[in-house]
Amino acid sequence: MTAVATLASNDTVDINAYVEDLARRSVAAGRQLAAASTDQKNMALTKAAEALRANSARLIDANTIDVESVKKAGKPDSFIDRLVLNEERISGIADALDQIAALPDPVGRVLNTVERPNGLKIERVATRLGVIGMIYESRPNVGADAGALCLKSGNTVILRGGSESLNSTRVIVECLGEGLKAAGLPQDCIQMIDTPNREAVKALLTAVGLVDLVIPRGGKGLVSLVRDQARVPTLLHLDGNCHTYVHAAADLGKAVSILTNAKLRRTGICGATESLVVDRAVAKDFLPRAIEALGDCEVRGEAEAQAIDSRIKPASAEDFATEYLDAILSVKIVDDLDEALTHVAQHSSAHTEAIVTEDQDAADAFLTTIDSAVVMHNASTQFSDGGEFGMGAEIGIATGKMHARGPVGLEQLTSFKYRVLGNGQTRP
Amino acid sequence: MTAVATLASNDTVDINAYVEDLARRSVAAGRQLAAASTDQKNMALTKAAEALRANSARLIDANTIDVESVKKAGKPDSFIDRLVLNEERISGIADALDQIAALPDPVGRVLNTVERPNGLKIERVATRLGVIGMIYESRPNVGADAGALCLKSGNTVILRGGSESLNSTRVIVECLGEGLKAAGLPQDCIQMIDTPNREAVKALLTAVGLVDLVIPRGGKGLVSLVRDQARVPTLLHLDGNCHTYVHAAADLGKAVSILTNAKLRRTGICGATESLVVDRAVAKDFLPRAIEALGDCEVRGEAEAQAIDSRIKPASAEDFATEYLDAILSVKIVDDLDEALTHVAQHSSAHTEAIVTEDQDAADAFLTTIDSAVVMHNASTQFSDGGEFGMGAEIGIATGKMHARGPVGLEQLTSFKYRVLGNGQTRP
Repeated sequence: MTAVATLASNDTVDINAYVEDLARRSVAAGRQLAAASTDQKNMALTKAAEALRANSARLIDANTIDVESVKKAGKPDSFIDRLVLNEERISGIADALDQIAALPDPVGRVLNTVERPNGLKIERVATRLGVIGMIYESRPNVGADAGALCLKSGNTVILRGGSESLNSTRVIVECLGEGLKAAGLPQDCIQMIDTPNREAVKALLTAVGLVDLVIPRGGKGLVSLVRDQARVPTLLHLDGNCHTYVHAAADLGKAVSILTNAKLRRTGICGATESLVVDRAVAKDFLPRAIEALGDCEVRGEAEAQAIDSRIKPASAEDFATEYLDAILSVKIVDDLDEALTHVAQHSSAHTEAIVTEDQDAADAFLTTIDSAVVMHNASTQFSDGGEFGMGAEIGIATGKMHARGPVGLEQLTSFKYRVLGNGQTRP
Repeated sequence: MTAVATLASNDTVDINAYVEDLARRSVAAGRQLAAASTDQKNMALTKAAEALRANSARLIDANTIDVESVKKAGKPDSFIDRLVLNEERISGIADALDQIAALPDPVGRVLNTVERPNGLKIERVATRLGVIGMIYESRPNVGADAGALCLKSGNTVILRGGSESLNSTRVIVECLGEGLKAAGLPQDCIQMIDTPNREAVKALLTAVGLVDLVIPRGGKGLVSLVRDQARVPTLLHLDGNCHTYVHAAADLGKAVSILTNAKLRRTGICGATESLVVDRAVAKDFLPRAIEALGDCEVRGEAEAQAIDSRIKPASAEDFATEYLDAILSVKIVDDLDEALTHVAQHSSAHTEAIVTEDQDAADAFLTTIDSAVVMHNASTQFSDGGEFGMGAEIGIATGKMHARGPVGLEQLTSFKYRVLGNGQTRP
């Protein structure tokens, strides 16, 4: 069996037929995967981890080809950094597979049981979703994580990584395939779209009846393309324009350490704070201390903030709507909780927002009113992460309100069905 | 305040602006509704029920206008029957509102709590979804049910009924508005699109950022239109091509009573059985008894079935894929459980399927393998209903796998958020 079908970008083969073939193979593999035991799925994952470790030199070679051509194309360093694989990163990818193997199987859980007066027993049971299409942009490890999470949750997956990482993805998918083979599962459980042809994305998004869900992970361009073209269900991962609100009754020492962690621990993740909202009552005390602690981080604010601390640079209206993903922070000074709630509601991308305060009523109002996937009291927004939530690995952070919200881990990759157990009941 | 904005079908006003205005009013009303108490929401519902009873004569007058124009247009009797409102039906609509008032509030439930080693407490809490667009075709009561379910679950709703029921819907929405007013809630919580202009549907389906969910209830044409045009999340209600499978080890007496109930109790609902699958081993015994019990119901089968009972008429391949919603039943004779599973997987619309058998292993295999929202053992498929599941009222039966599956009641109209409670934690 050839590991993966390959299609050149200038291939004249009908791209729709190619993607439909991948999808049909995924559906067929899913029927076998649905009958697989937890042990079998775990074995596939641990054997895939072994294959990744054993093939790390080959993976680095393939990755080098990807990295070289991206360098030639003059992509920015941050882009190249996300693409690069080395021994350490490959070891991390393999470890993640082992960790997913160690998580409980999310399929088959009885979520709820009702016994009706007529004797019918109705059980809600977790099931696999089916065929998942995963579209992602930069880091090759996303493909391995997604493949492993889908496998463990009984789903088959079609990976569509960035065209810059095709060589790396091909080796990763081969290693995952070795794990599947070792466990007696079809290699078609984890496939990739092996062509840079962009029409493949549209074909995946319109494969109604074959693809059960598409999960895009990438920038705004990708998300809006998916929203425009999708005819199958999607789980969108939008930007994280996260706010930390320092309330008048905040412990300012706590606020400084929470804010610096929320902004700077890692600036490139979606749970990083992008905007500080601070009550006027404490702004004069707080801002200089915070800016001191933030070090080289650029802080942008309006005239009032600049008057408090001359290190603050001017902010435009656009700043408050911007996910910097960099060492830049916007500052908004507000009258009180009410203005903070209004400002956050207007600019938040409904990912994660935190309030820092010792006033329980203010905290309760913030947590209740703010309509974000994750709302926090006295904690760093950087905790918005499946691992930190105790879910194990995550495939991303959903910012929509349907099906899953916040970290998307194994449980969020399942659906359910109702099992109705009777003894001949008919409905009056 | 005028109860409802009105727009004629030939109006030159921009339909997109009209729908956007409704949506913005819905968002604004939602902010107030989010802060309403359970008592306030219940009062709105019981007062709306009172208003419906008090205005039943006026509602019947409005409905008569709708019915007369549909009769002139030569619509079939079944269509007219779904449209007609009389004292009894209006009383039923009002009673349904009272019943929804009596159900527990689905918002604010703590669904899950996790305490992390670092002391963070993470609660998953049920929240409102936001603005829901409800598109339905025939029966005016759907608007009242949907309005009430959305209100109770904290959502605001924009109703888009069939253009044939505009006059009826207008009075219903006015009565719901009286309830809202009496409870001190904005009447914009429940609005209608008061124009037959079909472009309004597209405007609703593309109102990204304003509309959180559209639920279509209607025929295949509506569903595929929604799938093609939607840029906002949807909860699809497809057809119910439900199967009852009589296994070789069935108690045939039980099978006869289950089948006749599943087919004939009400033929027009989506949980009605449309197709009988029967093992060859018992077909000769079972079919004549079943056909006797089915009375005037037309039965269609292949040559083998016709040879067993001459009352069986020929079935085409299309019959097995058809949701008759009428007193017609297709019959498929199969070798065994395996062939039954294959036949059902191929033709089912993943709504509800039942197996009748005394063999527990066969039942388990059927319940596990069949990938439908509801799978039943020894019970009538007509139990596939929110009320029968103990959910109270339902807005429909979802046939997709995302978010909600099966009956969509109050709980399924909520989302959730994570509340993270800390005391200054920062992420290492």
